Amino acid sequence: MIEGLSLNLATVRKQWDLREAVEACARHGFAGVAPWRDQVIAVGPQEAARIFRANGLRVTGYCRGGLFPAADAAGREAAIDDNKRMIDEAAAIGAEQIVVIGGGLPKGSRDLGGARKMFAEGLTAVLPHARGCKVPLALEPLHPVYAADRGCISTLAEMLDLCDALGDGLGVAVDVYHVWWDPTLAQQIARAGKRIIAHHICDWLVPTKDILNDRGMMGDGVIDFPAIRRMIEAAGYRGIQEVEIFSNDWWSRPGEEVLKTVIERFKSVC
Amino acid sequence: MIEGLSLNLATVRKQWDLREAVEACARHGFAGVAPWRDQVIAVGPQEAARIFRANGLRVTGYCRGGLFPAADAAGREAAIDDNKRMIDEAAAIGAEQIVVIGGGLPKGSRDLGGARKMFAEGLTAVLPHARGCKVPLALEPLHPVYAADRGCISTLAEMLDLCDALGDGLGVAVDVYHVWWDPTLAQQIARAGKRIIAHHICDWLVPTKDILNDRGMMGDGVIDFPAIRRMIEAAGYRGIQEVEIFSNDWWSRPGEEVLKTVIERFKSVC
Repeated sequence: MIEGLSLNLATVRKQWDLREAVEACARHGFAGVAPWRDQVIAVGPQEAARIFRANGLRVTGYCRGGLFPAADAAGREAAIDDNKRMIDEAAAIGAEQIVVIGGGLPKGSRDLGGARKMFAEGLTAVLPHARGCKVPLALEPLHPVYAADRGCISTLAEMLDLCDALGDGLGVAVDVYHVWWDPTLAQQIARAGKRIIAHHICDWLVPTKDILNDRGMMGDGVIDFPAIRRMIEAAGYRGIQEVEIFSNDWWSRPGEEVLKTVIERFKSVC
Repeated sequence: MIEGLSLNLATVRKQWDLREAVEACARHGFAGVAPWRDQVIAVGPQEAARIFRANGLRVTGYCRGGLFPAADAAGREAAIDDNKRMIDEAAAIGAEQIVVIGGGLPKGSRDLGGARKMFAEGLTAVLPHARGCKVPLALEPLHPVYAADRGCISTLAEMLDLCDALGDGLGVAVDVYHVWWDPTLAQQIARAGKRIIAHHICDWLVPTKDILNDRGMMGDGVIDFPAIRRMIEAAGYRGIQEVEIFSNDWWSRPGEEVLKTVIERFKSVC
């Protein structure tokens, strides 16, 4: 088994359903997987849990919660309720954490500060339930290119400010794709310390042909993985690296090829 | 004349050559224009200067210098020499400043910190010449989506650190497209104060279909122009706003329509 390696199942979502993907990951020696919510709900959380256990795989994360900003109070309440349900699902499947992202601007809004405030309020509302279920929330800043439509929180600094303000039950997910450009990266990773509870990897391609779905296999782009890995290890994180690649290119290839390449690049590049 | 409005001539580069664009801007009442280097070199700096003067337009900026990172010493020297020539051209055309951007990673490099260092070194090397020619350099951070291939300096904070370190002759260009997402924007604009010497505007579209050439007309996207304008005015900047729109969409429309729309949106949105 490759101790330090997990596969985010979005990476092979076009090739395989949950069971097929999990069995393939087990066969190839991955230590864990991180499913998306639609993949778990398609079979139900109990059956998903059985599949993970039967294949001896850790569930290193569950994607994805947060997304609290909404145009009205009813929308914000619905997002909070949905996050609570997701926390229950995470507990049911034995997920080590939930990945939580900011969400975009409500439709028609230009108030980025307001969206950030709604994110903090939503997080505050669901945190007691997450603590009660013993499901940590891994706050993931998204690359600023997604600030408008997906992740109003763009930096580790902001997510750590929220951890400081809200206390236990929170940590951060360092996804190199989202943070590699940040001039304060080393400083913020050091500040994060033990609050780093997830480490996601994929590469930044030049050129990037699609803003969402042209992420790269490690080694095919410009990210210096060993340098960021050293920062993260210096901060005290020795946990798993989770490969998460949204890519029209890799989705078009056989799943077996994707998994083999992930393993080969993980060993040679990361 | 619309006192506060300048047009960056990239906005109509597919429709008109330099003379046509300048004459159209004068006709529509723009107070200034900002040409790109290829546009000036196509007619020669002396003729370009004559065209600007004959049409009574300020030259609010000259695009674009910087781009110092290179794979070897010869490449870095060439970039420095080229920037010095550009400073001479800026003086010849009466440009109020040169817009300076970071440049991307050298080919094959994954060393973003190294690229940032090369940018600082190049800037240091050309600054005496810029001072001698009395051409201010407006340091423009680019959106992090361009960190790999175009602008290794992504934040106002970093550009202001360089201003702090290198002293006279430098200022910053605040292009809302590049900085609107920054959670420290208000703080960094306040810190910039009188060092703000350029203010560029265009909108962030959702979705953005092309990373470079799908920028929006003000009002068509999610940027809160009045909010950022208030920050900039509070910092002491009362100067011109320069509209700069790289857009396959707007490049496909008649230049007259683009100019009319720019003016209408400037008045109603910004």
